[in-house]
Amino acid sequence: MTIEKQIIGNQFSGLGNETFYSCNPFTGTNNKFVFYKSTLGEICLAAEKATTAFKYYKLESGVDKATFLETIAEEIMNIGEDLITTCMTETALSAARIESERGRTINQLKMFATLLREGSWVDARIDTALPGRTPIPRPDLRFMYRPIGPIAVFGASNFPLAFSVAGGDTASAFAAGCPVIVKAHPAHPATSALVGKAIQQAAIKTNMPDGVFSLLFDNGIEAGIELVKNPLIKAVGFTGSFKAGKALYDAAVKRPEPIPVFAEMGSTNPVFILPGAMKEQGKNIAEAFAVSVTLGAGQFCTNPGILVHTCKDSEFEDILKNSFEKTTGGVMLTPYIFKAYKGGVQQNLSIDGVRQLAKGHTATSDENNLAIPSLLATTSAVFKDYQQLSEEVFGPSSMVISVSNKEEMINFASNFAGQLTATIHGTEEDLIEYNELLHILEQKAGRIIINGFPTGVEVCSSMVHGGPFPATTDSRTTSVGMAAIYRFVKPICYQNMPQSLLPEELTDMNPMKIYRLVNDMHTKEAITKNNK
Amino acid sequence: MTIEKQIIGNQFSGLGNETFYSCNPFTGTNNKFVFYKSTLGEICLAAEKATTAFKYYKLESGVDKATFLETIAEEIMNIGEDLITTCMTETALSAARIESERGRTINQLKMFATLLREGSWVDARIDTALPGRTPIPRPDLRFMYRPIGPIAVFGASNFPLAFSVAGGDTASAFAAGCPVIVKAHPAHPATSALVGKAIQQAAIKTNMPDGVFSLLFDNGIEAGIELVKNPLIKAVGFTGSFKAGKALYDAAVKRPEPIPVFAEMGSTNPVFILPGAMKEQGKNIAEAFAVSVTLGAGQFCTNPGILVHTCKDSEFEDILKNSFEKTTGGVMLTPYIFKAYKGGVQQNLSIDGVRQLAKGHTATSDENNLAIPSLLATTSAVFKDYQQLSEEVFGPSSMVISVSNKEEMINFASNFAGQLTATIHGTEEDLIEYNELLHILEQKAGRIIINGFPTGVEVCSSMVHGGPFPATTDSRTTSVGMAAIYRFVKPICYQNMPQSLLPEELTDMNPMKIYRLVNDMHTKEAITKNNK
Repeated sequence: MTIEKQIIGNQFSGLGNETFYSCNPFTGTNNKFVFYKSTLGEICLAAEKATTAFKYYKLESGVDKATFLETIAEEIMNIGEDLITTCMTETALSAARIESERGRTINQLKMFATLLREGSWVDARIDTALPGRTPIPRPDLRFMYRPIGPIAVFGASNFPLAFSVAGGDTASAFAAGCPVIVKAHPAHPATSALVGKAIQQAAIKTNMPDGVFSLLFDNGIEAGIELVKNPLIKAVGFTGSFKAGKALYDAAVKRPEPIPVFAEMGSTNPVFILPGAMKEQGKNIAEAFAVSVTLGAGQFCTNPGILVHTCKDSEFEDILKNSFEKTTGGVMLTPYIFKAYKGGVQQNLSIDGVRQLAKGHTATSDENNLAIPSLLATTSAVFKDYQQLSEEVFGPSSMVISVSNKEEMINFASNFAGQLTATIHGTEEDLIEYNELLHILEQKAGRIIINGFPTGVEVCSSMVHGGPFPATTDSRTTSVGMAAIYRFVKPICYQNMPQSLLPEELTDMNPMKIYRLVNDMHTKEAITKNNK
Repeated sequence: MTIEKQIIGNQFSGLGNETFYSCNPFTGTNNKFVFYKSTLGEICLAAEKATTAFKYYKLESGVDKATFLETIAEEIMNIGEDLITTCMTETALSAARIESERGRTINQLKMFATLLREGSWVDARIDTALPGRTPIPRPDLRFMYRPIGPIAVFGASNFPLAFSVAGGDTASAFAAGCPVIVKAHPAHPATSALVGKAIQQAAIKTNMPDGVFSLLFDNGIEAGIELVKNPLIKAVGFTGSFKAGKALYDAAVKRPEPIPVFAEMGSTNPVFILPGAMKEQGKNIAEAFAVSVTLGAGQFCTNPGILVHTCKDSEFEDILKNSFEKTTGGVMLTPYIFKAYKGGVQQNLSIDGVRQLAKGHTATSDENNLAIPSLLATTSAVFKDYQQLSEEVFGPSSMVISVSNKEEMINFASNFAGQLTATIHGTEEDLIEYNELLHILEQKAGRIIINGFPTGVEVCSSMVHGGPFPATTDSRTTSVGMAAIYRFVKPICYQNMPQSLLPEELTDMNPMKIYRLVNDMHTKEAITKNNK
């Protein structure tokens, strides 16, 4: 039995009396890792250390922060096979999936390092002094984004690496210049501990201030709420359920000093099939849809939970049925998630007017928490009458909705709440004909996919993994991709600051050769007497 | 007696039974303008019209939105002298001040027009497809900022033009592509009606959709709260008191769909004088400080409400006293504001350990609502014990705090809540010696001013008029300057969108020749086979 403690900066701490263990979803038994639950004292200590660390960490150069991120990536790779096997026993995900997720996690850290080394992300703006302007001279004004303070990050159940301890939220917060306190997800605490120690090692090796990173354990909600309520925490990153995300949001906005919460709370990711595409590609779309719904036991935030089409005969649904019956389910991440999946499907099926269109099968049958893919069908009228049908059922399930014409499809789309993604399958003629649908979906979702599927979220500069409430609590940002760095910064304007005291991104010489807006011109040039 | 109605898109509406009048602060009497208070039905109609208008307005090109903004500027100028005289009778501000504020308002609209014509503000990012990438191909991904929806804007009492109906919030929301519903400030409804009609005219002349702009009147809080609670409103811009701003924030975050509130709620704008500057410039600083505190009867958000120094003898306070005694007060904006000013000064003076250091005088004595400049003094120990001393007293008042050394000054700064600005007077040696103070203030304020005064907020790309709570409800933005446009937009990612359906900012050809990030390179070039 291995006993794991909180990571608080460069130390470990196990001051609590309560413990919990890492559960194997295949068997429902203990993985032989026991975790101290964090105490209020430990949470406060982590926040205090983060605040002290912030004083120094925010002054680290882009290059030094980049080295820190790259060293985290190295240290994660140095864990080796142990990370893969530990994660498998905690999540029931396959080795191939975990290896690929590790690759994504490493890649994400390195991409933020590249962003920092290049440096232009700070959006430097300079308006030089106009001492002779009348009636009032203009002072010298220089603007850039600066870090906001210690960030609380909540690990997600479904991405034990890429959205957890060293995941996107942590990477973007570190890149922004903010210390991070992660609350590990109780579904994979041993994986979290391994990654947490890798970050701790990286911080020590690269001389980052003690407290730049902490990792807290708890299998209830108390530690997380206490963390969000701690006055030293300045923003929150979260990926998970609507219920948990909204509870953190409510706690954050009720604080004496409210703070921003970037909660990604899931989505039904509707897919619309337009008539031309249906005619030309119906079969291919049906097959690819079945794969997208059931990929990784359907445990993706971007899993397509709704498919809307205008097909009048039963041909398309027959193809869908055939494709879906070939799919295989899998063991879900936790007993709780499995139970919620089974219950969610059952509850939707109990509605008058909702029918089972198809079921997948399972490769084995002797394992616990084994989800069977389930495809339901209904009409837009029934869908409209039952609010619960518009809520995400996390797992390998989707719902097919047939509408009679374009108008009904557009009305249906208009009634959607916020989504992470919306997908349209259409020929170019379809898309012109259904232009209004496109414009509606642009208000409903963070990412619009044409002739593809929403699963598979590329980490790059152009990605948006976000969307209007209730998909997230802040539609103005993304939690995947390089633009995520802007969640954890605020603009500062320096007026008449001497060159020697300006951050180097704002000095006349522009030593980092970053792109800046100087007197409203985009340029990498230094400021000289001529362009001042 | 002129009767004014709500402006709802291209129509006027006076469905209510209740009215209020425009008050002359010099006399306390009716300016002979009567206003219908908006009804719930009118508020809902304005929100519905804004939502319909949004469908079309968000598709207007940057050039067409720029023409709209420029036409608003022209229509405001076309009001002529009537705007100045009406505004004077409602605000007691001087003709020169109002003319200068009108210039600023016009300039602000034109600057956003220039930003739109140039077009790079949308932060276009393109990652082109990598169909041959293994193991998974990369789709074509294109990112840009798009408008968020109808915005509620609350006019401020102290800037009847530049922070009101056609002020910064309205200009930035229109520029972003969002319709605007303004709730006029009851301190200057007739001024608001004139400007509102100018915007209405500009919208009609430039063929903007009916509902892109509405103006509502109310002299209580009901209409504003109803507006914020309306589900069709997607964000809120506000400038005013902490109490009102926080009430709107609380209403917005409790909605079924929470929305962002950008409330600028004032600040005490501390000024720190370091020893070297005191020695070299003490007299000049004292004189300039007295002017900054009493400018426009002290009715600026950036009015310096606290001055901290380490001077051990009484020499500096003597100079301050002399300078301050030369200052003149003036008639305040409203009887309510005057009463709050008098009460605030009185309440602070009633604290044991707070003394009156100096008083200004008044040019006349027979007018109503005439504020007398008031300079108080205390110690950091007393300041720390009384929370009320850290709250803004809106008007020509400030408080001098003498501290015994550097350590006490830094401790004092550490305990500040969020501010719009923080000012340091120091020689270059001082600033190096007090480097820690600089770093603390960077966490406390949106703008750091060296050897100047915070009054005078330049409208330009580098300005930040914002700061941590309680100065604002969102430190990640600014309400003055070009970066304000980002409050009213959200990123959208288009995946595999055909060229013909992409916004032109994202097409391969880049017809607007804007700066874009293409495969992580900053460029104005079109995308061709070679760089794809």
